[in-house]
Amino acid sequence: MDKTVQEINAMLPFVLRLENIGRYEDGAVIFCDRRQYPFERVFVRCEELECVAEAIENMVTQGGGPWVIAVYALAMQARTLGGESAARQKEGLQKAAQRLMATRPTNTFLHRSLAKALQAAIQAIDNGERAEQAILTWMQPTREELLMRSARMGRYGADLIEDGDGILTMCFAESAFLLGLAFAKQDGKRNHAYVPETRPYLQGAKLTAPSIHELGIPVTLITDNMPAYVVSQGKVQKYFTAADLVTLDGHVVNKIGTFQNALACHYHRVPYFAYAWAPDPSKPNRAAIEVEERDPAEVKEAKGVATTLAEIGSYYPAFDITPPHLVAGVITKFGILSAYDLARYFGKDAGVPETR
Amino acid sequence: MDKTVQEINAMLPFVLRLENIGRYEDGAVIFCDRRQYPFERVFVRCEELECVAEAIENMVTQGGGPWVIAVYALAMQARTLGGESAARQKEGLQKAAQRLMATRPTNTFLHRSLAKALQAAIQAIDNGERAEQAILTWMQPTREELLMRSARMGRYGADLIEDGDGILTMCFAESAFLLGLAFAKQDGKRNHAYVPETRPYLQGAKLTAPSIHELGIPVTLITDNMPAYVVSQGKVQKYFTAADLVTLDGHVVNKIGTFQNALACHYHRVPYFAYAWAPDPSKPNRAAIEVEERDPAEVKEAKGVATTLAEIGSYYPAFDITPPHLVAGVITKFGILSAYDLARYFGKDAGVPETR
Repeated sequence: MDKTVQEINAMLPFVLRLENIGRYEDGAVIFCDRRQYPFERVFVRCEELECVAEAIENMVTQGGGPWVIAVYALAMQARTLGGESAARQKEGLQKAAQRLMATRPTNTFLHRSLAKALQAAIQAIDNGERAEQAILTWMQPTREELLMRSARMGRYGADLIEDGDGILTMCFAESAFLLGLAFAKQDGKRNHAYVPETRPYLQGAKLTAPSIHELGIPVTLITDNMPAYVVSQGKVQKYFTAADLVTLDGHVVNKIGTFQNALACHYHRVPYFAYAWAPDPSKPNRAAIEVEERDPAEVKEAKGVATTLAEIGSYYPAFDITPPHLVAGVITKFGILSAYDLARYFGKDAGVPETR
Repeated sequence: MDKTVQEINAMLPFVLRLENIGRYEDGAVIFCDRRQYPFERVFVRCEELECVAEAIENMVTQGGGPWVIAVYALAMQARTLGGESAARQKEGLQKAAQRLMATRPTNTFLHRSLAKALQAAIQAIDNGERAEQAILTWMQPTREELLMRSARMGRYGADLIEDGDGILTMCFAESAFLLGLAFAKQDGKRNHAYVPETRPYLQGAKLTAPSIHELGIPVTLITDNMPAYVVSQGKVQKYFTAADLVTLDGHVVNKIGTFQNALACHYHRVPYFAYAWAPDPSKPNRAAIEVEERDPAEVKEAKGVATTLAEIGSYYPAFDITPPHLVAGVITKFGILSAYDLARYFGKDAGVPETR
C-alpha cells in the first residue's frame, strides 16, 4: 500500500472517515449520528461516560463505530479521574470499561479493544503517568493500523473485480469493501453496485447506497426480496459482504440475508467473498455460533411506522450463517483465503489472534 | 367439496370475503380499501366509472380485487347508459371497458373478465334486454364458481400439509392458500405460518399475516431477508405461494422474492407448491415472459417515508421467475400437477383455457 493514512481516509465516504466515526477533543467524544444519516450529517458531543454508553445502546453509531467511541469514553473517564489516587483511578476505569462492554454484550471487538485500552491505562497509572494520554497513545496507531489493514484487504478485493462487473453486497460492509470499490474505480474499472436495503434497520438504504454514490460509483438500491432475480438477470458478477464473525472452519456469520444471497449467487455461479479481520479462534464450527436475536417488534415497523397489527407475532434473527461451501474466499490481511484453510493462518497453532 | 358457497365464504378472512372484495348495490360499487387494511376496515363507494378506475390504479384494491370491481363498474356504466340507443350503449360500454382494462395493462384475468362481461352486455342489448342485469347475471355464478374452485384447490393444498408443519409463503396468496390453511386446521392439524413482509408494498405484513392470524393459525412475520435462515433452522416444511402467471412449460411468475425463497427451500429439501388457476396458453416458456417493472421510487420508501437519498438509483421488478425444477407441484383444479405436465391439462390440444 503506497498511500498514506490521510490519503486512504480521504478516499472513504463521509460516514467512514476516522474523524466522523468518532474523535476525541479536550475531554469530549464527538461522533456522527448514523440514525440521521444520510438525510442529515449531525454530530453528537458527549462529555460524560453515560452519554456515550447510551448512544451505543441506542444505535446512534453501529458497525465499526461503537469500539471507537467506547475507547474515547474511557479516555474521557480517565481524564475525569485524573486527580484521584491510583487505586481509585483503576477502580473507576474498571467500572467504566464494564459499563461500556455491557452496551453490546456480543461485540467481541468492542470488548477486546476496551480491555487493551484499560490495560494501557492501568500500566500508565502504575508508572505514575496520565491514563488519559496512555489510552490516546494506544488508540491513534491502532485506528491507523486498522484503516491500513482495511485498505490492504480492499486492494485484494479490488483485484477480484473486473471491468464491467456488477457487484452485489448486503448490509453495510464498511471500509474494506468500500475501499475495494474505490480502488477498482481508480484502476479504471467501471462497475455497478446493487444494494439490498437490509430490513428492518435499512443499513443498505441508509449507509451503503449513499456511501457508494459518494464514491462516484453507480449504485442501484433494491429490496431484500430482489437479489436472486437481479443475479438471474446476469447483472451481478461478484458478491461481497463483511463478516460479523467467521468460525475457524469457515462459516460466515453476517447480517441476516447474507446467506440467502449467497445461495442465489452459488446457484447462478457468481462467487461470494467475505471481508473478515480474522476468524474467531474461540469458535471452531457452526455449533459454537449463537445467533443474536433482536427485538421482534422492529420487524413490524419501518422507520418507526407500523407495517402490521400489534398482535401479530414476529421474529428478528439479526444474523445468518453461510456455510464454507458457498464462500469463494475470505478476504483477510493475508489475502483471499479459502474458507477451508483459515485455521492454518489464524488457528491456535498459528499464533496470537488478530487483535492489537 | 361438500360445503356451500356461503360456508366457504364465511371461512375466509375479512379481506377475502366476496362482499368485502367488492359488491354492487343499486348503481354503486363498494369495496374494501386494502391500503388502510389491517389498521382500519374502510370501504370505498364509487358511483362513477372513473372513481373505480382510479381506485384500481391507486392500489386501493389489488390481487383478486380489480377484476371484480371493474366488472361492477361496467354494470354501473350500463345502468347509466340504460336510456340511450343500443348503438350508444354499446359504444359507451366498449369505451368503459377500454378505460378499465388500461388500469392494469398486464392483468390478463381483468382483461378476460371485462371482455366476457362486455360480451354478455352486448348480447343483452342486441336482445333488447338490460345490459346492467346481464353483467350481474354473468358475474354472480362466475364469482361463486371461482370461489368454489379456490376451495377445491385449497383442499388439495390442505392434504399436502402435515400436522406440525411450518408453512412459508410470500406476498398475499389469496383464497386458495388461505382456505388450504383453514381446511388443515379444521382437519385438526397444528401448523405455523412464516410470512415475509414483501417489500416494497408490504402485502405480507398488511394482508397475509393479519389474514392468517384471523383464521386462528399461529403466524410469524419476518423480513424478506430472513426466509433462507428460517428454513435452515428447520422451522419450515412446506412453501406455498400463488402465481401471477405460469407458463405452459412450468415457469412460475409471482411476486418478487418467490424465486429466492424457492431456491432456499430447494437447498433445504423443502417442497414448493404454487397455486394457479391455469397456465397461460399464450406463454409457452420463459422467453415469453415479460416481467413488469414498477416505479423504482417505491423501493426508496417504506409506507411513504424515505429510506435513502432522492438521488440514489433504484429498481423495482414486480415479479420473478421460478423455473420448473424448483417447483414440487402446481396446485390447479385438476389437482397437484407436475410443473412439467401442465400442457397436457391446459395446452391448446387440451381444450379451452380456464376462463369462464
